[in-house]
Amino acid sequence: MVYLTRIERFNAAHKLWVADWSEDKNYEVFGKCANKNWHGHNYKLHVTVKGRPDPVTGFIMDAKKLSKLIRKHIIDVVDHSNLNLDVPFVPQGLQPTTENMIVLFWQQLAPHLENCELHSLRLEETETIYAEYYGE
Amino acid sequence: MVYLTRIERFNAAHKLWVADWSEDKNYEVFGKCANKNWHGHNYKLHVTVKGRPDPVTGFIMDAKKLSKLIRKHIIDVVDHSNLNLDVPFVPQGLQPTTENMIVLFWQQLAPHLENCELHSLRLEETETIYAEYYGE
Amino acid sequence: MVYLTRIERFNAAHKLWVADWSEDKNYEVFGKCANKNWHGHNYKLHVTVKGRPDPVTGFIMDAKKLSKLIRKHIIDVVDHSNLNLDVPFVPQGLQPTTENMIVLFWQQLAPHLENCELHSLRLEETETIYAEYYGE
Amino acid sequence: MVYLTRIERFNAAHKLWVADWSEDKNYEVFGKCANKNWHGHNYKLHVTVKGRPDPVTGFIMDAKKLSKLIRKHIIDVVDHSNLNLDVPFVPQGLQPTTENMIVLFWQQLAPHLENCELHSLRLEETETIYAEYYGE
Amino acid sequence: MVYLTRIERFNAAHKLWVADWSEDKNYEVFGKCANKNWHGHNYKLHVTVKGRPDPVTGFIMDAKKLSKLIRKHIIDVVDHSNLNLDVPFVPQGLQPTTENMIVLFWQQLAPHLENCELHSLRLEETETIYAEYYGE
Amino acid sequence: MVYLTRIERFNAAHKLWVADWSEDKNYEVFGKCANKNWHGHNYKLHVTVKGRPDPVTGFIMDAKKLSKLIRKHIIDVVDHSNLNLDVPFVPQGLQPTTENMIVLFWQQLAPHLENCELHSLRLEETETIYAEYYGE
Repeated sequence: MVYLTRIERFNAAHKLWVADWSEDKNYEVFGKCANKNWHGHNYKLHVTVKGRPDPVTGFIMDAKKLSKLIRKHIIDVVDHSNLNLDVPFVPQGLQPTTENMIVLFWQQLAPHLENCELHSLRLEETETIYAEYYGE
Repeated sequence: MVYLTRIERFNAAHKLWVADWSEDKNYEVFGKCANKNWHGHNYKLHVTVKGRPDPVTGFIMDAKKLSKLIRKHIIDVVDHSNLNLDVPFVPQGLQPTTENMIVLFWQQLAPHLENCELHSLRLEETETIYAEYYGE
Repeated sequence: MVYLTRIERFNAAHKLWVADWSEDKNYEVFGKCANKNWHGHNYKLHVTVKGRPDPVTGFIMDAKKLSKLIRKHIIDVVDHSNLNLDVPFVPQGLQPTTENMIVLFWQQLAPHLENCELHSLRLEETETIYAEYYGE
Repeated sequence: MVYLTRIERFNAAHKLWVADWSEDKNYEVFGKCANKNWHGHNYKLHVTVKGRPDPVTGFIMDAKKLSKLIRKHIIDVVDHSNLNLDVPFVPQGLQPTTENMIVLFWQQLAPHLENCELHSLRLEETETIYAEYYGE
Repeated sequence: MVYLTRIERFNAAHKLWVADWSEDKNYEVFGKCANKNWHGHNYKLHVTVKGRPDPVTGFIMDAKKLSKLIRKHIIDVVDHSNLNLDVPFVPQGLQPTTENMIVLFWQQLAPHLENCELHSLRLEETETIYAEYYGE
Repeated sequence: MVYLTRIERFNAAHKLWVADWSEDKNYEVFGKCANKNWHGHNYKLHVTVKGRPDPVTGFIMDAKKLSKLIRKHIIDVVDHSNLNLDVPFVPQGLQPTTENMIVLFWQQLAPHLENCELHSLRLEETETIYAEYYGE
């Protein structure tokens, strides 16, 4: 079993804000991430698939095809977007934290992989924060 | 003459949009950067000062003091902000491009340096785009 | 189960030296790392916690709170220190190798995490050497 | 159990080309990687061993010795080489993909480790593609 | 005057070999870079243009247009190529060193910039070697 | 005129401490950098030479020879050293700041370059601080 990872990037705006809470409570819990006018990040997404290299091509999966799938189902939807307002697969009221986004990304991508299995996702939000998810 | 650089980071949202133009023209010129709901970036700012190292301390300028000045006059204002809406020193109607922001940053910081001179700024917007400015 | 990682940095001096050995044997085993006048590194520490994102905040753990815990229990103790001389939690005579330091860091940090579990630590000593530990 | 990783680099040329296929089919499957005149990469190899730190030296394995083993059995063979033509341990007709190379590297290195166990290899081919292998 | 940089990448094979020299002399001067079966690199090219930001768009030059020009005149020609054999603008017998390639890249790109001026190129061949050129 | 840069690394300990000052004053000016038991860094040194590429070899200077010169005159002296105690070319009482070290490095290296000229040095002390020097 060999693991192959493809990295893609996107830029997006978001904020963390619970509608049921007062402004004070939102700032107390989320700090500057609650800025009502949004802030944003350069996100970096690692997608890892696993399988056995094909004896003829040597590929688990063609990295260019993997890139196309990631772009179609994730990057094209979230790049240069507002994660709170523009992304159909983010349920209303769900905070677009790194932890929540990575689970949603898994749900978008996993059904579309053929001949290999999605193993893990890593989503880097800043140079000092990232989340990882293995599908359960 | 020795040059000393300190790097600071901030995260912000922005969009590129000319109010006098139609939506079509804005998208034609700015592409996805015109998304009305904003997008964002992890910015990385290099601040370079020049001078002669003090014969006793060996410092052109204490890097911790330089860091405090950059934070006070730039980072604390722009971090987790919306560059179009939240930043007092961005004139209304000016596009918050990397090129424009770097000139504004220079104007904010240069008057506050003592005993050494501001030499250059570099502002990295993504892993593939950055701007530099030398004050004129 | 989602994994969240926060990265913190510190700078420290150390040397590798077994008191019971001759100088020759120390240099034979540890090479330049045995320099009696010390050498040092910029260390980079990845702290990974695991848990389920809170349904309201979307957080496994607030990354800012995680950062404060890491700083209080590890970084504030080791930053700009001598790992052999200045760090109370390094037992006398224990070599401050990357492998040993990471186990000590785990012992310092693990008891202080609430509502989530420490999953792993990664300690990078140079651009080409790092250690990882999963608590057992 | 602690994990220790050493990173080494090498530069090599290769191409992906199935001799039994037409030129058209090769370009259809491999794209530009089928260029008959080769292309190349700066490869970055992470070698991770696992074990218990020695109570006296604090080492799982001396990182300098690990580096020498990796260089002797892998880097010295593949650096500045053509992976299709110059590397004795690449079976004729096997595509030198990242996935295949990493399995071959494991076979070269694993038998030579003493007092600790090879845990994993990571081979980075570009800034956006890497493979990992755990020996089975 | 503001400077704007766009980074693009490409992967290529090459060798350093003077046809008039013996094999021994080639290896003496070029070392492993003379391997007759080629080796290769992941190249990273910084293209810096200078000008005054447009008062309406805030652009010196649209970074996406700059990217398209670099791709058309340089990257599409050299990516996944053999720099000795496949690139029309490399004169026969000229060594494809980083120093020579960067001058050739300038000649390819400079005539195609409008409304701003090419200021400098930086070509990174490995993590430890790069060349820069300012057009004279 | 083309510029060629070679990067080398070293690890060292140091402290900032003015012997004529009280402990209080040293800590006031230098903060944690005054720790009497030292601290340390992974340094990264960029050495840039300039010249015209040789018409036959395509080299300004063989990067391997440049690397050897840098190692002989700088890296072998400072790697795994204490910059205050172990380095003959650091005058007693001079603070080993990044600014001072880079001037000393220039004096060590410049006389030994042949057929090309030393253009600049960049010394990176941490991920957020670096100094540059052009020889005057």
